Order: sequence, then C-alpha cells, then structure tokens
Amino acid sequence: MIVIKTIKELQEFLETSSRNIGLVPTMGALHDGHVSLIKKCVSENEVSIVSIFVNPAQFLPEEDFDKYPKKEEADIKICEMLGVSVVFMPNKNEMYFENEPLIKAPEHLSTILEGKTRPGHFDGVLRVLNKFFNLIKPKNAYFGKKDTQQLIIVQNMVKTFFMDINIIPCDIIRANDGLALSSRNTYLNDDELCMALKLSRSLVKATNLIQQGELNSQNIKTQMLQILEPLKVDYVAITDKNLAEVQKIELGNTIILVAVYIGQTRLIDNIWL
Amino acid sequence: MIVIKTIKELQEFLETSSRNIGLVPTMGALHDGHVSLIKKCVSENEVSIVSIFVNPAQFLPEEDFDKYPKKEEADIKICEMLGVSVVFMPNKNEMYFENEPLIKAPEHLSTILEGKTRPGHFDGVLRVLNKFFNLIKPKNAYFGKKDTQQLIIVQNMVKTFFMDINIIPCDIIRANDGLALSSRNTYLNDDELCMALKLSRSLVKATNLIQQGELNSQNIKTQMLQILEPLKVDYVAITDKNLAEVQKIELGNTIILVAVYIGQTRLIDNIWL
Repeated sequence: MIVIKTIKELQEFLETSSRNIGLVPTMGALHDGHVSLIKKCVSENEVSIVSIFVNPAQFLPEEDFDKYPKKEEADIKICEMLGVSVVFMPNKNEMYFENEPLIKAPEHLSTILEGKTRPGHFDGVLRVLNKFFNLIKPKNAYFGKKDTQQLIIVQNMVKTFFMDINIIPCDIIRANDGLALSSRNTYLNDDELCMALKLSRSLVKATNLIQQGELNSQNIKTQMLQILEPLKVDYVAITDKNLAEVQKIELGNTIILVAVYIGQTRLIDNIWL
Repeated sequence: MIVIKTIKELQEFLETSSRNIGLVPTMGALHDGHVSLIKKCVSENEVSIVSIFVNPAQFLPEEDFDKYPKKEEADIKICEMLGVSVVFMPNKNEMYFENEPLIKAPEHLSTILEGKTRPGHFDGVLRVLNKFFNLIKPKNAYFGKKDTQQLIIVQNMVKTFFMDINIIPCDIIRANDGLALSSRNTYLNDDELCMALKLSRSLVKATNLIQQGELNSQNIKTQMLQILEPLKVDYVAITDKNLAEVQKIELGNTIILVAVYIGQTRLIDNIWL
C-alpha cells in the first residue's frame, strides 16, 4: 500500500495503474462502517483507493471542522490491513484553488432535512467529490447509507453530469446496542451514548409498527417522537427513495430518517424499507 | 460520418471507439471560424466530434435564443466535407434534467466584461461543457479566441476540476475586411456590417500605438473609443491573460477586448498581444 499526499503523485500512480479502480471517499477517523465499505471495495476492484480528507467546504463556519476527530496513523494501519492499494490524503491547498467554479446541489434535494440546518453542506460535498471523481476516474465508488441524503445527492450528480461511475450504496453498520457507527460518536460521553440509542430504537419501533400494518406516516412519526423524548429532535421524516415526504408507507420505496441533538452533538440515523 | 442525436447512441459509439478524441463544441451556424477549429481537430485526433447544441442555459431570458441562426443541413455537410467522425446534435431534454446540480463560474472571471451584461451566461456555458467533457472524455477540446473570456473560464474549470483534457485555443478568423467571424454577424444589414468594421479597426489602432511605444492603457483606450464613435460601446478593456485590467501594457501578457451594440446586435472582438 502506498500513501499519497499530492495530486501530482496520484496522477503518476494512476497513469501506470489498471483502470478498474474502486474509491472509498472518507473524512478519516475510520470505524467499522468505513471498514465494511473498504472491504467491499477491495474485493470488487483491482485497485482500491481510500481518500482521507476532512473537507472544509462541507462544514458550516460554526460546525466542528476544527475538532473533527483525526487519527491518521490508525487510519493508515486499518487500510493497510484491509488490502487497500492507495491511501490518498491531500491537504486543502492541493484540492482547492482560490478561484474555481462552485457546484450548487439541486435545491429540492439539498435544502431539506440535513440541508435545512446545514445550508451549503451538500454543495461542499459535491465540490470535493466532483474533483475526486475526475481525478481518480473510479469505476465504482462506495457510500454508506448512514448519510442517505448525501448518497442520493451524489447519485443525482453522477447521473446528471454523465459521469461514468457506479455509486454503490452500503448498509449502515451498527454497534451491538444498535447505535449507527459514526466518527462523531466519539464526542459522546457515557450518558449521551445511552441517550443516543433512542435513534435506532425509534427506527425499530417504526419498523415494528409497519410490520403490524401501520402505514400512516403521521401515526408512525408520533410514536417515534415519543421514544425520542426528551431529546432535541431536528427532524423525523418519512420519504420515498427520492426524499419526497410521503403520507403513506409504500414498502420497497420508503426511507425513515431521524436527526437529533445530544448536547452539542448532532446525530443522524435512518432505515430503508 | 455519423450524426448522433441521443446520449445513448453517443455512449454506444464511444464504447467501441478510440480514446484519442477531439471535441469542437459549437452552437451550429458554422462559419470559417468554426471550420478552422474543426480542421485542426480532425488533423490532431483519431476521432473528431463536433457538437451542435444551441445551449438554452447560456442565454439570458431577453437574449436571442429563439432567433439564434440555425442551419442544420449546411452544418452537417460542412462537417462531413471536413472529415469529422461524429456530429452530436442532442436536444435540450437529452442534455438537461429537471433537477440537477448547477455550476457557478468563479466570480472574478465571470462577473466582469461579458458577465456584467450577461449575468449567468458563463454558468450556463460551464453547465453544458462539464457534461460534454464527462460524456465524451475528449483528449483535446478546441475553443476560439473570439470568445476569450469563455476560453479562460473553461481553462479555469478544466484545471480546478482536475479534468484530463487539453483546451486548445484557436486564433480568430476574420473576413477580408477585418470583421471577426461570428454567427451573429448574420443579424447585421449592410450599413451595420460597415459600422461593425470599427471593432477590428480599433484593435488595429491599439496594436499600432503599442508598436510605436505607447504602453499606457488609458491612452490607448481613449484612442480606441474615438474610432468606435458613434457606436454604443459596452466596454473597451485592456487586461492580462487572467482578465485582470492593467494600467500598463506588458507584451506577451496582454489582451485588448471590446464589445459594442450595433442596433440590437451585440458584437465582441479582441486581440492577444
């Protein structure tokens, strides 16, 4: 495995390598969620590249860019053990120019849910991914369903920009207690970790209700909100696979999404049904 | 030569073709300016593709989208005679989706000169070119210096988006009387055509002054404006190769640009020194 920090080195590597490339774009602080993406990427591609870049463009000024967990050495070790070909860790000045075109995510997908509290977040996500995709030209790129809205917005960009890339959605990985793995879980103390279980419990409750025949979104949301008490809920939403809210559950085309604040930490979770 | 109208057909063609592709993106109504680009493209690439697409995204609502000259049959004939491999003529619904990410051209390049009277124009140019570049993956793409600001903004996108494409600038082609060729020249009547010669004459005057040792931009502009009278001048600008205005001419790094209205028609011209 090689660790590459500059665009130039990456281009030199790519010139001599196979065109069958898989990419796992990450912000580092790798956990078992990332591990599942990386394993899939390594098994499905001749060359597997993991990018580690805490992308300033996707953080709002007041967000946690400065304190976002960093553990470079451990991340590199993990990638090496998993058989990754290249870890690409550029710095900000490699990726961004003072003057460059910006990308504006489509409004109907980017101003709802996460986009409501994080305006501009998805513009920043697309800004960096467009560059990674152009640079690396992966055949396959792996994204976790944990960030469902990001996944759907990236799929939209790849389709409408006519990019020749398969976006591979990967299932959420959870701790034994049900908590969806996230680099931001490290912000939580023991009490908060306990409160955080309410997210997955609310989704389990929704799933059980649906299995019992409840298909009315409002009724399901009401019961989820009861479970989430006393957390500060940002949203509970029931949508179709294009993130349009639905009044009635249609199995096979439903996503239930939830976002809450626990102390200073914002956590999200979701389930596809 | 084949004429392709859908993305799907184009992708099928590209799957089986050489990767050494040259692209000349046009809005049709081909004149000798286009011909020079196409000839260069045909001579430098195994596969040459000319796109003909009057891009609605780069016209302002009050501009001449509806009356922009169209002469499909003649255009196809010209391409055929020049040895083009593929003419790609998609319609609007092939190229654009109802909801898709938009591209915002960098402000310092896109809000000056043409951008001042045509806000959003360059966003529309980049929107379609980004798609053409992703779709066709040309090795070389040919742009006329006639649209100097467009050329510089496209070069900026290709560089900052890490696109693996050579942007080839091509010299302006002029009629015997000096008029820079443009599809919009067909809007002019005889009197207006005569007035239009003032553009190239003002640039010749500037060149002569500089050859005589005049390096002060303001003095040169003053004399150009005299020649342009009584036309309605939008701008006369003397800039470096990054379109930043300069007070003093530096040979090898200077562009002189001019835009005027003749009746309802807006014409531009420029010279690189």
